Amino acid sequence: VPDATLIQPVILSGGSGTRLWPLSRRSRPKQLVSLSGDGTLLQRTALRTAGHEGFASPIVVAAADDGDPVEQQLAEVGVQASALILEPVGRNTAAAIALAAVEVAPDTLLLVMPSDHEIGQVDALHDAVSAAKPLAEQDWMVTFGVEPDRPETGYGYISRSEALAGGLFRVARFAEKPDAETAAKWLAEGGWCWNAGIFLFRASAFLDLLSIHAPAVLQAVRNASSRAERIGSRLLPDAESFAAAPSVSVDKAVMELAPRVAVAPVEMGWTDLGSWEAVHALGPHDAWGNAVSGNAIAVDSRDCLVRSDGPTVVALGVDDLVIVATERSVLVVPRGQTQRVKEAIDALEARKKPQPD
Amino acid sequence: VPDATLIQPVILSGGSGTRLWPLSRRSRPKQLVSLSGDGTLLQRTALRTAGHEGFASPIVVAAADDGDPVEQQLAEVGVQASALILEPVGRNTAAAIALAAVEVAPDTLLLVMPSDHEIGQVDALHDAVSAAKPLAEQDWMVTFGVEPDRPETGYGYISRSEALAGGLFRVARFAEKPDAETAAKWLAEGGWCWNAGIFLFRASAFLDLLSIHAPAVLQAVRNASSRAERIGSRLLPDAESFAAAPSVSVDKAVMELAPRVAVAPVEMGWTDLGSWEAVHALGPHDAWGNAVSGNAIAVDSRDCLVRSDGPTVVALGVDDLVIVATERSVLVVPRGQTQRVKEAIDALEARKKPQPD
Repeated sequence: VPDATLIQPVILSGGSGTRLWPLSRRSRPKQLVSLSGDGTLLQRTALRTAGHEGFASPIVVAAADDGDPVEQQLAEVGVQASALILEPVGRNTAAAIALAAVEVAPDTLLLVMPSDHEIGQVDALHDAVSAAKPLAEQDWMVTFGVEPDRPETGYGYISRSEALAGGLFRVARFAEKPDAETAAKWLAEGGWCWNAGIFLFRASAFLDLLSIHAPAVLQAVRNASSRAERIGSRLLPDAESFAAAPSVSVDKAVMELAPRVAVAPVEMGWTDLGSWEAVHALGPHDAWGNAVSGNAIAVDSRDCLVRSDGPTVVALGVDDLVIVATERSVLVVPRGQTQRVKEAIDALEARKKPQPD
Repeated sequence: VPDATLIQPVILSGGSGTRLWPLSRRSRPKQLVSLSGDGTLLQRTALRTAGHEGFASPIVVAAADDGDPVEQQLAEVGVQASALILEPVGRNTAAAIALAAVEVAPDTLLLVMPSDHEIGQVDALHDAVSAAKPLAEQDWMVTFGVEPDRPETGYGYISRSEALAGGLFRVARFAEKPDAETAAKWLAEGGWCWNAGIFLFRASAFLDLLSIHAPAVLQAVRNASSRAERIGSRLLPDAESFAAAPSVSVDKAVMELAPRVAVAPVEMGWTDLGSWEAVHALGPHDAWGNAVSGNAIAVDSRDCLVRSDGPTVVALGVDDLVIVATERSVLVVPRGQTQRVKEAIDALEARKKPQPD
């Protein structure tokens, strides 16, 4: 089997969100921590394709600071990246994917995956990729859509129009995160999926669209790549060149503007683990609805998330709380308010600053 | 001024309660930790008399394991104990006080104080001691009573009968911790005080009563004392002798049985800090009723106790919670349930044990 038929996974590990603070933080992003006790999210993402027939070794695009932990975590699960591209600065997903796309043969199929989502049923993803492959080989841009089971306001949505081959649909439009009323309407009317941020397309198709719709991104990436430092499998794009790339998402730069975009609906137990609430929902739960992990116990407590990578945490007689501890920090917040984590971080940073007179 | 006229403070520091876990624990009792940021409770207790006219340097009775921290904490506030008596095992307050009483001249007045209570108005205590002194010099046993301001069920009570000199009253009876209904009744009828566990009496009066009502305690203490090891101001009672002492409180062994017992009512901002709820009540509070101390902040939270001697703790959007962190442990419990701390400790100990099949 010649390599050209292999699908090239591209794992995007450049995010640095703090929504799972204190476990994740700027210097240790979510994808590099273990949320389930069954490997880090990066490791779980890598193992979705590594060792599976039909996939090449992944290209990983990560922040320069994360080079060592990424390499080490991949090694721990026996994965050797075909390239580890270390971004000197973050320039969003269009540029990150372009860094990978310019490294491969033009007709290579890229399977682009965020590194910080959980997928419970990997087989379902594989089936969807197989179903999507023929369209991608005809230069369609394919995105994978998750069937909504609730009126979620935290995700982008995709609406579909006519059916295509293999159970895919032409995309009618991409929609931003809706308000609650709109989300409820879309859920009721059907034909909408969540945008999971997973894509399958040819490198050449992507780069052609980028040259039309975001030429400054492509130019910056080509400059950064041609002047890159290469050490083994590590690739360090030229910092000054890459910094010139506009910061734009692949959705905005390419997917929303491309003429032939398909969505492959897939039920794969997907969650973006974008809040402690989502981590609680993932479980596993004890008989009282608590998700307890690490050095922690819950006594006479209900529907709590209690986890510690640091001191022994005891939740006693509490309901609907998120309690997360590391050696440095402890967060206590009601389960319905976990999206407020940034307020906690802001408050801590304000405390560190000299106070005004 | 001859020394015999000085009142001899006796500080009881042998307690090892875990009601303020995780800050206090068996190996670091409550009196040795700082609850207010203004010294440890032991230090605050020592400074109630040290440096004040009319008082000798204190005798401190502590657990053998606490010898070094007790000595160090006293030195930090410039107090040199006249004796540091280190109990090889705990044998309750009758024996602890007896260890001190046999060390002093018989007619010495002892002011016995627990080391783990807070007294906000020290002047009021001094005034009460001055008022009580004449009766104590006539061999009355004097206890100090705190006027109740709520139907507290956590303390013992004292009822008074006829008025004596100096604003004191003869004690009618000592009562165990009442149920809620009884406590409410006593509060309504008046004439009842809380038993604060602070006493003023002559050493000889105490020892005479002990010889009548608890001779085994006295005998064990005399044996332990005569065979004690003495190193500087440290006194280590003989372990085997002392272990033979029955474990009984000074209330049960002496105060409840003595013929001439007086109570000196005193309003001195007293609290026994016997629960996290009491520590919260002590404050200080921010504008939203939170008592926040150490490496901790409360954001959009109300009526919480949040304190850390370890990791940075953030309480975000929570009400009526107690959150206490040390480098080892974190407790999260509702404010109304802080008396359940023992359940947390039990649960942790159960986890450490091998599980039954």
